[in-house]
Amino acid sequence: MSTVSNRRPLAVIAGLGNGTGTGASSARLFAQHGYTVALVARQRDNTLVNLIKEIKDAGGDAAYFAVPEYSRDAISSAFAGIRKQFPSSTYAIRVAIFNAAHGVWKPFLDVTPEDIQAAVDVNIVAAFAFSREAIVEFKSNDLNEVGKRGILIFTGATASIRGNVITSAFAAGKAGQRSLSQSLAKEFGKDNIQVILTDLSRARQKNNPEWINNADVRLDPDSIAASYLYLANQDRSAWTWELDLRPAHEKW
Amino acid sequence: MSTVSNRRPLAVIAGLGNGTGTGASSARLFAQHGYTVALVARQRDNTLVNLIKEIKDAGGDAAYFAVPEYSRDAISSAFAGIRKQFPSSTYAIRVAIFNAAHGVWKPFLDVTPEDIQAAVDVNIVAAFAFSREAIVEFKSNDLNEVGKRGILIFTGATASIRGNVITSAFAAGKAGQRSLSQSLAKEFGKDNIQVILTDLSRARQKNNPEWINNADVRLDPDSIAASYLYLANQDRSAWTWELDLRPAHEKW
Amino acid sequence: MSTVSNRRPLAVIAGLGNGTGTGASSARLFAQHGYTVALVARQRDNTLVNLIKEIKDAGGDAAYFAVPEYSRDAISSAFAGIRKQFPSSTYAIRVAIFNAAHGVWKPFLDVTPEDIQAAVDVNIVAAFAFSREAIVEFKSNDLNEVGKRGILIFTGATASIRGNVITSAFAAGKAGQRSLSQSLAKEFGKDNIQVILTDLSRARQKNNPEWINNADVRLDPDSIAASYLYLANQDRSAWTWELDLRPAHEKW
Amino acid sequence: MSTVSNRRPLAVIAGLGNGTGTGASSARLFAQHGYTVALVARQRDNTLVNLIKEIKDAGGDAAYFAVPEYSRDAISSAFAGIRKQFPSSTYAIRVAIFNAAHGVWKPFLDVTPEDIQAAVDVNIVAAFAFSREAIVEFKSNDLNEVGKRGILIFTGATASIRGNVITSAFAAGKAGQRSLSQSLAKEFGKDNIQVILTDLSRARQKNNPEWINNADVRLDPDSIAASYLYLANQDRSAWTWELDLRPAHEKW
Repeated sequence: MSTVSNRRPLAVIAGLGNGTGTGASSARLFAQHGYTVALVARQRDNTLVNLIKEIKDAGGDAAYFAVPEYSRDAISSAFAGIRKQFPSSTYAIRVAIFNAAHGVWKPFLDVTPEDIQAAVDVNIVAAFAFSREAIVEFKSNDLNEVGKRGILIFTGATASIRGNVITSAFAAGKAGQRSLSQSLAKEFGKDNIQVILTDLSRARQKNNPEWINNADVRLDPDSIAASYLYLANQDRSAWTWELDLRPAHEKW
Repeated sequence: MSTVSNRRPLAVIAGLGNGTGTGASSARLFAQHGYTVALVARQRDNTLVNLIKEIKDAGGDAAYFAVPEYSRDAISSAFAGIRKQFPSSTYAIRVAIFNAAHGVWKPFLDVTPEDIQAAVDVNIVAAFAFSREAIVEFKSNDLNEVGKRGILIFTGATASIRGNVITSAFAAGKAGQRSLSQSLAKEFGKDNIQVILTDLSRARQKNNPEWINNADVRLDPDSIAASYLYLANQDRSAWTWELDLRPAHEKW
Repeated sequence: MSTVSNRRPLAVIAGLGNGTGTGASSARLFAQHGYTVALVARQRDNTLVNLIKEIKDAGGDAAYFAVPEYSRDAISSAFAGIRKQFPSSTYAIRVAIFNAAHGVWKPFLDVTPEDIQAAVDVNIVAAFAFSREAIVEFKSNDLNEVGKRGILIFTGATASIRGNVITSAFAAGKAGQRSLSQSLAKEFGKDNIQVILTDLSRARQKNNPEWINNADVRLDPDSIAASYLYLANQDRSAWTWELDLRPAHEKW
Repeated sequence: MSTVSNRRPLAVIAGLGNGTGTGASSARLFAQHGYTVALVARQRDNTLVNLIKEIKDAGGDAAYFAVPEYSRDAISSAFAGIRKQFPSSTYAIRVAIFNAAHGVWKPFLDVTPEDIQAAVDVNIVAAFAFSREAIVEFKSNDLNEVGKRGILIFTGATASIRGNVITSAFAAGKAGQRSLSQSLAKEFGKDNIQVILTDLSRARQKNNPEWINNADVRLDPDSIAASYLYLANQDRSAWTWELDLRPAHEKW
């Protein structure tokens, strides 16, 4: 194996939602494991500010790069901003997590052109843009201690695999993203760049505390983040492309 | 079963390419089997004119509705034009075939934003628009002699199922379209509206006459069209959603 | 294409159940379309006798070859019997349908060793034996008018694709059979031998006449048989391996 | 969560081959992580003796239970032997790995009845028997520190997912086993029993040292074992059923 870089590992995470989900849990966990964390997200109230503070208070290193929306230009600017703050002389982007998503759950005839456009723009077009930035970064990296230049992780869903009655627009976007992840995994494996899709099979009951506190039925963001860390640490002789995750008691 | 309509069956076919492929073969075959055929396509030289003439010379009924591109508005206008020329008092749209496609075959880092946009616009956004027009028409139909209101057929590809090294943009679009077809099949089956995806597994050797004339290795557009006619005639007790088609000798 | 045989086409169908399902419908339909039909099944009361009589009364040609069970030796003997009655000088086996199945629907801990053995013996071991007899016959055939030597059709089920709570033994057998069909399709396509798996997605409500007479919810054996005939007639430029079939109104 | 057992965790691993593969690596790794290891395998020379010695020399605890073949009775006897040596008062079986496999790689017409029988017996019938023993044990367990009663892991292969030209018998067995694992995962998730299938996509070049020592192209048994340990440690809110593993540089 080539010599391992002395540069500090940087994780870029796009898509933070309200700061309580997979993106935020991943940010915390990778920060705890020595990664500097760059958050790319739309600024909602103080979500990003608070998360950065929380990570720093815990001894981690993090910064955020707010985007007005997940357009190609905005993503490109965010990476430029990241590179300005964390220059490639000192930092190597090793992990890139695309966790942004635009969900639409409506009967087909209620789906508007705007719904379709947004589902496609975030789940596919932005995923391509984010992938390009990440892959270009990874290609210039040397191999890390587990023999990879970088890992690109997409947060998928059951809709990544299957269309269903009220998911036409969301599933079309997610299926396109899954296909992208497979194309990338096949093309860049030989460059020791790993690409991952995780299929999260989760029913949501947002306002049900009993559900939220029952780990048997609720996919815990911290557990998802733990799987991302595991994947980032897979050595190059045994790589996964697609990982399904569901709570123990889910009926499927 | 409810009484069968006296209205004349109309087949709308979008995507004709150069007039020698699946769309054109389907137009000819459905015209031979009593369908009036409405062609929606970009005008390329005299492709549409010639195809209409050929169908009429063979005793069929057909018209074309040229679109500048496969945008939602253009598709909407085309259906309005179809309805003007073939009013619903006399014609029932029974078959809608979405055969338009935008292919991109490039290594990922060569894929441009325009490639991605075009792949998404034609393969997904236009597919949604075409589906909407078709489904709305079908919903107002009575049942035909095989118990269905209408059938919506998508011409898919191996890329509908799998991403691969040089297909990231094309496969993302096609996977999104496949997912759309599944959502629609699940949602509108109960309304006796059938939705089909055909996965065509074909290598292309466009300038190799030996290949073109060898039915063992080349997926013949007429044979694809024959499968579309079969699907249109499936009775409501045994419907297919996804049909794979490949030449006998293909290695897969 | 090579000259088409003058030999009479013979269809071998294994698995007739009680004479009201897919096997019997296929026997009737292929007989109507000019095939001599050889039925391989366990003799249950007069099922086979009655079906043969019905086919002959309708002007068809048929015979049965009762087997004590679907063992390799019994299948081998049945083919020997078929060849004695319908010699290869006059008859070419063009269609072979493996419709025999052993279903087990029990919670896993209730599944007995006998259940597992029977599920494996009928759904896999007998499927291998039947396939071998059919393939060997097909290989000695010339090409027919649609350019194939023969077609081997397996009647699959949703369990062919997915395991589920009470289907462990049945689904293991059916998944094994599906895999066999794929291996054969890939290996013998180049010899112009087609291999098909049909996935029938059917809920059964055997004693509900309202259900039985509603084509929207019940997969009709005659419709399944019609799909088998279609597949047998697919020309060599556009072959299907796997065909899903479900009633229009099925929730899936 | 209920109180965590004080009993010592026991891992049962079936299928050791020549002691240099996935089974042996798993035995070493689980032993290093505090599991007592019970090996179930056919005795080949001193493979089992040596592996037990190696584990014990490293401070671990292990024993072997040789079976003449992977029959239901032999597996049942092996578990009885395990329970005699490691009584349930002191030991809780937490991990069960079914790594035994019978491979057949031949063109279909060369596959013998014995090949089919052996492929089915080891890959399906024995998998059912092993599963039953494991599930019954797990059901009597309390929850461990990650909230599960036990985990049953099957070592799969590409053949678990796809049939191919020379894999008819092997793939039929492996597909049946995959289906079994899915049925079990669905049925016993609610009992906090996890069931896993790993699909190992590996080309083998057994006598090529350059290949064996290149982690980019060779699926390393130690890396596979690391994934098994990860899966055993997944908490109940985020369980995987199927995990694909392939070397970074594999073409797929």
